Amino acid sequence: MPDKDILSVVIPDVIVSIDKTGDAVVVVEKVSQKLMLYVYNGTYEKLLEFDCSTGESSGIKLRAGDKKTPEGIYFFLHDYIDKYLAPIYGSRAFTTDYPNFIDRTTGKDGSAIWLHGTNKVLKPRDSNGCVALTNKDIDTLVDYIKLNRTAVAMVEKINYVPVESVDAEKVSIKNFLSKWNNTLEDGTYQDYLKLYDTQYVPEIRWWSQWNLIREKIKKNSGELEVNIQDISIFKHNNIYVVLFDQVLKSIGNNVSFAGTRKLFISKIDEKLKIIGDEYQPKENLKDTKLLKHPLLIASLNLEKLVEIQKKKDLYKNIENMVMEWVKAWSSNDMDKYASYYALDFYSNGMNKKRWVNYKRRLANKYNYINVAIKNIKIRIGKNGADVSFFQIYQSSGYSAKGIKKLKLIHEDGKWKIMRETWKKS
Amino acid sequence: MPDKDILSVVIPDVIVSIDKTGDAVVVVEKVSQKLMLYVYNGTYEKLLEFDCSTGESSGIKLRAGDKKTPEGIYFFLHDYIDKYLAPIYGSRAFTTDYPNFIDRTTGKDGSAIWLHGTNKVLKPRDSNGCVALTNKDIDTLVDYIKLNRTAVAMVEKINYVPVESVDAEKVSIKNFLSKWNNTLEDGTYQDYLKLYDTQYVPEIRWWSQWNLIREKIKKNSGELEVNIQDISIFKHNNIYVVLFDQVLKSIGNNVSFAGTRKLFISKIDEKLKIIGDEYQPKENLKDTKLLKHPLLIASLNLEKLVEIQKKKDLYKNIENMVMEWVKAWSSNDMDKYASYYALDFYSNGMNKKRWVNYKRRLANKYNYINVAIKNIKIRIGKNGADVSFFQIYQSSGYSAKGIKKLKLIHEDGKWKIMRETWKKS
Repeated sequence: MPDKDILSVVIPDVIVSIDKTGDAVVVVEKVSQKLMLYVYNGTYEKLLEFDCSTGESSGIKLRAGDKKTPEGIYFFLHDYIDKYLAPIYGSRAFTTDYPNFIDRTTGKDGSAIWLHGTNKVLKPRDSNGCVALTNKDIDTLVDYIKLNRTAVAMVEKINYVPVESVDAEKVSIKNFLSKWNNTLEDGTYQDYLKLYDTQYVPEIRWWSQWNLIREKIKKNSGELEVNIQDISIFKHNNIYVVLFDQVLKSIGNNVSFAGTRKLFISKIDEKLKIIGDEYQPKENLKDTKLLKHPLLIASLNLEKLVEIQKKKDLYKNIENMVMEWVKAWSSNDMDKYASYYALDFYSNGMNKKRWVNYKRRLANKYNYINVAIKNIKIRIGKNGADVSFFQIYQSSGYSAKGIKKLKLIHEDGKWKIMRETWKKS
Repeated sequence: MPDKDILSVVIPDVIVSIDKTGDAVVVVEKVSQKLMLYVYNGTYEKLLEFDCSTGESSGIKLRAGDKKTPEGIYFFLHDYIDKYLAPIYGSRAFTTDYPNFIDRTTGKDGSAIWLHGTNKVLKPRDSNGCVALTNKDIDTLVDYIKLNRTAVAMVEKINYVPVESVDAEKVSIKNFLSKWNNTLEDGTYQDYLKLYDTQYVPEIRWWSQWNLIREKIKKNSGELEVNIQDISIFKHNNIYVVLFDQVLKSIGNNVSFAGTRKLFISKIDEKLKIIGDEYQPKENLKDTKLLKHPLLIASLNLEKLVEIQKKKDLYKNIENMVMEWVKAWSSNDMDKYASYYALDFYSNGMNKKRWVNYKRRLANKYNYINVAIKNIKIRIGKNGADVSFFQIYQSSGYSAKGIKKLKLIHEDGKWKIMRETWKKS
């Protein structure tokens, strides 16, 4: 491998793209019995290289007990430290998601393909199919591994390619993901399914519910974004394994995490198509009531956040109106003051006109009027809002403190005062 | 209404098309408290008209207990005679499929909307929502009703239209059905779902299995037809309710009934789309293992029939070959006779050439050779077929009866004799 200083970096061709700085990928090469750690920091750096031990038998894992190490792109699921482990696993072990969607659909079985330490001397091709490291090495590696995020690519022999050589693939996969994501945001389920291989029928019953909640959020907030972030793209056997987080976003920067998704994408008749679709870790989407569907959970969650946000906005709106009314009153801007009263205002035996005239006379009479309020309380009901606060009125001629109560209604899209009562304390 | 003799027949506009001669539709008109029976016999004839009694309250049924008769297109599900019924139902009762898909999705509830007789005097608007007839009338009607086939259209007031006026609708619905059916036969699930409304997500998980079995049948037989037959098209509130039988067909005229389907079709943005899809009677397609899906059941059934057919064809093929070999031998057509022997034939110490020459000499020697066989037995194995039969050989010089055994192999796409043994009895 060339130095880091040289312009063109070469990387194992299993890596197509990692978005998130600091994210790592473990690459296991069976032929050399080496495990390497690549970390993305703007470019890909090989930070670690260790001796490892893979399955006693060579070839691709097919069956439980065949003592072979699988080949493909996997992700670490759980970690265990020695006190929970049999001595054979050394100081710690990471479980993986073998067999993944591709393995299962191609009839491969077996399980418990782990990356683990060992209390024995590490020898080449000495495992039951797992990947073993020395305890010292796995204890170094642990700092770089994020469960359900860090990939482990297991291959017979690494093919190194210049990092630029995968740029076009990276762009086309990202465009494809964005298209897919847009159908979730705005499209029909038919648009969505167009991006899936004709031979693969994904679970789609959740769409009805998604469609309802999606419309509800849009109607309630005017805004729903479906975003994908932290995309990692790997490739093995011409199948792209793509991991990313999905996040729903609406007004007020309210976001709702909708799960980590793993798509298997392949070129079918020159077009990218999804040939497998899972959550990472895998959710049981066969659940009849769809209760476990991460996208539905997230959307219901966001719907609640949007409702709270709308309520917050409403309170803020009323509070702002009251503060502006106080400001107009205090600054002797009596036209503006008048604008906060409803046409049908009536209090203390006065309609709007008489009330405003009365207040104008007072404003003219005193050199200054200063109104401050505190402890504002707002209660929103069906027919308007009740606002109460402690009011401190000071003027050149008269001062008083007490509880002011306003009954507000919505008129011409604005909150207006319908009743005003005052109780001196 | 004009006489039947007049050229233009008018029909209630709920009827768009009935395919099957003899099929009937019951039309209930609330405003006149009349029940009519139309039967299709090349054209539509009103054969019966009875007084009936519908729900006490007027309007469209919405809720259980509202004493209203629903409006829409329903089908008779079950029939019960008086000994199983409360006296209120008179001599017999037919249950219907209210609430149907449309009722359920528009939030209507209630159930047990029946067509029944009565032991009381029939009075207008006197039922709980059911349609009641006199016992005499319902006992006349019974002969025309086929369960899960005969529709009952319930409307406030019948709108009569000339029968020709629905021709264009009939053609466009039938074209649409044929398109839908073609996607089942040859299309992808994406093609299939394109014909569904974007707001309605039908159950589609069964497609994976359907796709596998469909390909298997096509591969095994070269032929799979998905046919629809006995289409009845009704219309209410601009929704077409379409009932038809679905039948799978393959080689040897093997057919497999795939259920009676009921589609709800509507024009969305000027295009026909399926807005509801049910079996009649309704099957629970939510069954996780898809075991109850009529199309899958039918396809598995057809797959078996095709296998049996292929085996039958194979036996027939071998039997035909043996009979032709006998015929060639008996008619002294020794070139043709020779053509039934495999290149590597070896029996009685003779290869093909010597064997054929020996038989040619005998054929020349005798004035006639007559071979008849009976009790042919065929056993097909992995590497060929074993055939045995009782052979009666008569010629001008020699006659014998006994058991002939042939070992056949497949050579150049034809069955050929590899060994021939003979045991005189």
